[in-house]
Amino acid sequence: MDLETIIQTRRSVRIFSDKPLEKEQLESLGLAAIWAPTGGNAQPWYFIIITGKGTIKVIKTLSPGLLGNPQAVIAVLADKQYNVRKMGQVGETLALMDCSMAAQNIMLRAWDLGIGSCAVRSFNQKALQEILEIPEHISVELLITLGYPGHEPAPPPRRESVIQWDRFHGET
Amino acid sequence: MDLETIIQTRRSVRIFSDKPLEKEQLESLGLAAIWAPTGGNAQPWYFIIITGKGTIKVIKTLSPGLLGNPQAVIAVLADKQYNVRKMGQVGETLALMDCSMAAQNIMLRAWDLGIGSCAVRSFNQKALQEILEIPEHISVELLITLGYPGHEPAPPPRRESVIQWDRFHGET
Repeated sequence: MDLETIIQTRRSVRIFSDKPLEKEQLESLGLAAIWAPTGGNAQPWYFIIITGKGTIKVIKTLSPGLLGNPQAVIAVLADKQYNVRKMGQVGETLALMDCSMAAQNIMLRAWDLGIGSCAVRSFNQKALQEILEIPEHISVELLITLGYPGHEPAPPPRRESVIQWDRFHGET
Repeated sequence: MDLETIIQTRRSVRIFSDKPLEKEQLESLGLAAIWAPTGGNAQPWYFIIITGKGTIKVIKTLSPGLLGNPQAVIAVLADKQYNVRKMGQVGETLALMDCSMAAQNIMLRAWDLGIGSCAVRSFNQKALQEILEIPEHISVELLITLGYPGHEPAPPPRRESVIQWDRFHGET
């Protein structure tokens, strides 16, 4: 698939089929993540690829925003303290932006492989840190659910009017 | 180019050639941006595509992080207030993440077209708002510089050890 098609046909998938994902596919998603750009090339992140059915079940109970039964979940983590030490307070914001760009790489590459995904921000931070054995100073910024799509979500309408030229031309 | 190649060969470009960009290319970058996912499908964003040489020169003086002489700049704006009204305080964080994912779409699609880009976060917010006629409650979150590459940056080394399985296995 060419990139334009991948970008425009990717949907947020919230119903997944039972077909398992292969290890090579998940490895490829990890690689896509780490090639995103980061402020000051700090790479202040970790990507935990979770495939254990038991762990996913527990994560689901801790994440109101996580719908369906994904075959895998990638937890995108930020070490904001590291970034703040390196570049001051702006490092906190940059780490969040870096993680988001990496997440977009993961979701695009997943769709390129025919795999559906959904970014989830609604979860119990502390409980997730405990279960995944994440130290307190490293935070979960996103969960990305993964699996072959079990439905074909319609494209939500896009507002093309937000694309403006040369200066701000008004709210739309 | 296939997506894997686009993701892994994209570099942050900070020296640009004089070759101008075409309007259709820039339109295509705008379209790539608006197909990124957003929390609650809020699309709390605007994308201002700036090509005027005078405006770019002024923006450059206001943005210590902006290097080289890009042929175009896309300002990625967030309406965080709108998001906060819609979904509470978390909307502020989500808007930033949404804008970052859209920015990654822009930079990947640019590279797909042979165009170099660099995400810039270091700029004078108030002065940019004034010059681009952006209302106070809408913020510039990123500037993306664009142009054909005038150099071939080496790939910065990547830490593959940040990809971990099933649980956090330690800092690397």
